[in-house]
Amino acid sequence: MSHTIHQKPKLLARVRRLKGQLEGIERALEAEAPCAEILRQLASVRGAMNGLTAEVMEDHLREHVLEVEDEDERHKGGAEMIEVIRTYMK
Amino acid sequence: MSHTIHQKPKLLARVRRLKGQLEGIERALEAEAPCAEILRQLASVRGAMNGLTAEVMEDHLREHVLEVEDEDERHKGGAEMIEVIRTYMK
Amino acid sequence: MSHTIHQKPKLLARVRRLKGQLEGIERALEAEAPCAEILRQLASVRGAMNGLTAEVMEDHLREHVLEVEDEDERHKGGAEMIEVIRTYMK
Amino acid sequence: MSHTIHQKPKLLARVRRLKGQLEGIERALEAEAPCAEILRQLASVRGAMNGLTAEVMEDHLREHVLEVEDEDERHKGGAEMIEVIRTYMK
Repeated sequence: MSHTIHQKPKLLARVRRLKGQLEGIERALEAEAPCAEILRQLASVRGAMNGLTAEVMEDHLREHVLEVEDEDERHKGGAEMIEVIRTYMK
Repeated sequence: MSHTIHQKPKLLARVRRLKGQLEGIERALEAEAPCAEILRQLASVRGAMNGLTAEVMEDHLREHVLEVEDEDERHKGGAEMIEVIRTYMK
Repeated sequence: MSHTIHQKPKLLARVRRLKGQLEGIERALEAEAPCAEILRQLASVRGAMNGLTAEVMEDHLREHVLEVEDEDERHKGGAEMIEVIRTYMK
Repeated sequence: MSHTIHQKPKLLARVRRLKGQLEGIERALEAEAPCAEILRQLASVRGAMNGLTAEVMEDHLREHVLEVEDEDERHKGGAEMIEVIRTYMK
């Protein structure tokens, strides 16, 4: 059982909003919008991606580490967290 | 006339690939995939986003700064570049 | 009692190495080195900073979260971790 | 002749301030400060590093690209800029 079950609707809404933002960039490219405009939209997608990722990390920490009584399970959740930290801090 | 005209097909292909990756995350959430898996997919989208952004920045620098003979036009393109640098280095 | 006690010599060595790298940048500026060279040195300091930060985060997670049996203490360590994630994912 | 000549005093002051912040982290480690405190100081150094890097990038863009009339020289400065963008957007 994964933690994403509990937060599923909220996370799905964020992913769909992100997809909508990418569709905005697609339309801007088709319409040959100025690239300064495209760059602003890309920065906004990046912010939204970072926010979504921080939320999934926090959920993971809460449900697979903090609230886990079993030490082995907790260390498994922690090892996954460390893998993520290394990926993002490279 | 914007620089995005020349690179349009290539950039559109990258944006669509990114949208496909987000749809993969959507499906993974629906299927209640383990969040370690979701986090890996998010890291991969982040890499693709950064790659796309670097490409748009490079194109902008080339077509609105480097290849511009008119000094005023070049400074306009440069000012937009500086705005982008500030956003990304915050 | 803080976790930094255990890792202290290793972390101090990394901080001192970073200081040495900054002194290199100081000397390069004094010697009026080309700025492409300065930018390369700055990128290298950034990599070292990220590596040090990832290490402190991992140590924190291990010693203030994973190895803590007391639930209240674990949640305190976790809340600090979440604060850090938010700072870095902004 | 490098652009860093003109901005030298300002950049040197920033590098020295950064060194001072690292010395603060060194003292905090020696004094066995809580790691949440160390992490806050690291985040603050990261912010200062990013600010310094953005400034060097902007100076480079201004003096080696925007204000350069000779097209070959401008492309050389631009190629260095693109190298930097790729490093930071990886």
